Amino acid sequence: MNEPDESGFALNPQLSADTAFVADWRLSRVLLMDDARFPWLILVPRRAGLVELDDLASDEQAQLLGEINHAMALLREVAACDKLNVGALGNIVRQLHIHVVARAESDPAWPGPVWGSGGTIRYGQVAREALIEKLRR
Amino acid sequence: MNEPDESGFALNPQLSADTAFVADWRLSRVLLMDDARFPWLILVPRRAGLVELDDLASDEQAQLLGEINHAMALLREVAACDKLNVGALGNIVRQLHIHVVARAESDPAWPGPVWGSGGTIRYGQVAREALIEKLRR
Repeated sequence: MNEPDESGFALNPQLSADTAFVADWRLSRVLLMDDARFPWLILVPRRAGLVELDDLASDEQAQLLGEINHAMALLREVAACDKLNVGALGNIVRQLHIHVVARAESDPAWPGPVWGSGGTIRYGQVAREALIEKLRR
Repeated sequence: MNEPDESGFALNPQLSADTAFVADWRLSRVLLMDDARFPWLILVPRRAGLVELDDLASDEQAQLLGEINHAMALLREVAACDKLNVGALGNIVRQLHIHVVARAESDPAWPGPVWGSGGTIRYGQVAREALIEKLRR
C-alpha cells in the first residue's frame, strides 16, 4: 500500500478516553484498552471517515490484517492467553477500530465476550506504563 | 492461494446444530445462524485444526478477508443494517469461525454484542429457506 493519507484523521474522543497510546504502526494507531481485566489492544486505521472494515481499500485491508496478526503475537508475548478474540463492532463508537483481546479461562467475562461485560478496572499508572513499555519492545 | 486442503475438515457439531448451510465458497463454509433476531453469517475455513486467525497461512487469510467482504455485502443486500459486526471469538467453539452480523439499532441486543445475548429465536422453516435462497443468488 501507499503511505496512508492521515489528513483529517482524528481519534474518536471516547476511544481516546478509554485507552492509552502505544504506538503508530504503518496504518493503525495502536491503543491499550485501560482495563486491567483483559490484555486488550485496539487498532485504529489512521484514515478519516472509516466506519466499516470494507470502507478500507483492499491493500489497506491487507495491511490491517498484517497488523492484527502482529497484535495477536504481541499479546501472546506479554500475557497468559487461552484464546484471542478479534472483533470489529463499532455499535457505540463508529470510527473503525479493531479489538484484539487476550482471553484467559480465568478472566471475569469468560467465556462471554468482553464487550458489554461492565466493571472496567483501570490499570495503576506503574502497571500501565510497564505494560506499554513491553508492548513497544 | 492454492485450492484449500479440506482433508480432515469436519464442521464442529455445535456450529452445525446452531446454523443452516448456505454455501461453500472457495475457502469457507458459509452458514446462516439460525436466530431470526439477527441476520448473521458464519464463515468456517474448510481446513482441519484451525483455532486462531493466524493459524491460517497469509494467502488464505487474504482469501478469508475477501470472503468476509463478500459476506458483508450480501448481508447489506438482504437485511436492514445500521452497522456490521465482524468477530472471531471462539471461546466456546474452538474451531476457527468468523461471525459477520448485520446489526440494527432496533435489534434486541443493540448496542451490545450479539454473543451471549441469549434468547435465540429460530427461523420458521419457510422464512429460513427464503433467506438462504436470497443469500445464494
